[in-house]
Amino acid sequence: MSAEIEARLKDLGVTLPQAATPVANYVPYVISGSMLYISGQLPMEDGKVAVTGIVGKDVDVARAQRAAELCSINILAQAKAALGGDLGRIHRLVKINGFVASTPEFVEQHLVINGASNLLATVLGEAGKHARAAVGMASLPFNAAVEIDAVIEIA
Amino acid sequence: MSAEIEARLKDLGVTLPQAATPVANYVPYVISGSMLYISGQLPMEDGKVAVTGIVGKDVDVARAQRAAELCSINILAQAKAALGGDLGRIHRLVKINGFVASTPEFVEQHLVINGASNLLATVLGEAGKHARAAVGMASLPFNAAVEIDAVIEIA
Amino acid sequence: MSAEIEARLKDLGVTLPQAATPVANYVPYVISGSMLYISGQLPMEDGKVAVTGIVGKDVDVARAQRAAELCSINILAQAKAALGGDLGRIHRLVKINGFVASTPEFVEQHLVINGASNLLATVLGEAGKHARAAVGMASLPFNAAVEIDAVIEIA
Repeated sequence: MSAEIEARLKDLGVTLPQAATPVANYVPYVISGSMLYISGQLPMEDGKVAVTGIVGKDVDVARAQRAAELCSINILAQAKAALGGDLGRIHRLVKINGFVASTPEFVEQHLVINGASNLLATVLGEAGKHARAAVGMASLPFNAAVEIDAVIEIA
Repeated sequence: MSAEIEARLKDLGVTLPQAATPVANYVPYVISGSMLYISGQLPMEDGKVAVTGIVGKDVDVARAQRAAELCSINILAQAKAALGGDLGRIHRLVKINGFVASTPEFVEQHLVINGASNLLATVLGEAGKHARAAVGMASLPFNAAVEIDAVIEIA
Repeated sequence: MSAEIEARLKDLGVTLPQAATPVANYVPYVISGSMLYISGQLPMEDGKVAVTGIVGKDVDVARAQRAAELCSINILAQAKAALGGDLGRIHRLVKINGFVASTPEFVEQHLVINGASNLLATVLGEAGKHARAAVGMASLPFNAAVEIDAVIEIA
C-alpha cells in the first residue's frame, strides 16, 4: 500500500515536505487508539505560508484551491511522520474540516476544499474517501487563505 | 427503538429526504469503528438550499432556527442511509458543530443551533443529548445560512 | 496524578468553577467509549462571559489570551465533573478547536489560543500535549471573544 501511495505522489509531482513542528505548547498530531488527529495545517510551501489573504477579495478560487491542496500535502506529511514513514498504515481518512478565509459574499468554500479532497482521494484511493465540512472564516493565522485539519483511522 | 424514532418523526410532521450525495471527491458519511462521522449538512429542502444569507442581516433568528432544523433533518437522513435504514442503531448523538453565517454584530448563534438541538433531542430521546459548539462564520457554501456536522456513536 | 494536577492548578492560582449546565437541549459533555467530548466553552468567570467583543477591534491579544485561558479553565471544570472529580483520569488531551472572534485583518489566532494551550500543558503535563486548530470567526455566542471545545481520551 505504502509503495502505491508513494508512487501516486510521485506521479502528481508532489514531494512531501519535512513535517513542521509547532513552536508552542501543542503538537502537530496525537494518536489515540486507532485514531490519528492532525492539527490544522496551513498552506505551507518551502517553509512559509504560500497563499495569503481573504478569498473573494485577495485570492481567487483557483489560487485558493491550490492553498487547499498545499494544506492536504502538509496533512500527508504529518501523517507520514506520525506513522513512522508508512502512509500504508492509513486505514481510512475519516474527516477533514476545511476553513476558508472568506468575504461575506464568497460562497464557494466547497469548490476551494475540493482542492484538498481531490488530492487526498487521488493519493489514498478508497482509503481517501472522507467526510468533511467546508466553511467560511473571518480570517486565519498568519493570514493564510485556508486551514484544514483531519481525523484518520490507522492500522 | 427504530419504530419509536420513526413515530416521533411522524408526530413532528418530518419526512426524511433522500440522503444527498456529494458531487465531489468526498462522501456524506464515514463509519470508523463504532463512530459515524457525518459531513456538514446544509439546510436542504426539496433538493435545494432553503435558507440563504447572513444571519443578522438577511435572515432573522426564527428563520435561522428553521435552517438549523433542516440541517438536523438532513443529518438524520444521512444517518438512516449509513445505518441501513435503522435509526435505532444510533446509540448516542455525541457531538454537533453548528456553523451560522453571521454578521460581526450577531451573537445569538446558540439560539439558532437550538433549532437543531431541539429536534434531535425530541426525535432521538436520551440518545439525542449531545455535546455541541455553536459559532459564527463569515459565510457558508451556496450562501447557506447554517451548516451542521455530527459525530454519532452507533451500535 | 490527580493530586499533582490539583497542585499545579493551585500553584497557578486557578480555582475551577462549578461546571456550567447549558439551558438548552444539549449537554456540556458526552462520554463515548474512552473519549470525552466537551462542548464549546466560553470565557466564563464568576458566572458571566468575562471577555466580549471582536479581537483586532474591541479586544487586544493579551486580553484575548486571557479569554482563551478562561475557556480552558472551563474545559477542565467540565472534565472534572465528567470524571467524578478525578482529573487524573485524563489519559490524553487529544484535540482542541479554538474559535476566535476576529476582524478580517486580525491574523494572530494562534497567539490567542496559546493562552489555552499553555495552561492546559502546564496543568496536565505530558497528558496535556494536544493537537489543535485555531481559526477566526465572524462572531460568537453572547459576544464572547473566544470559544474552545475539546476531545479528551480518558482512563
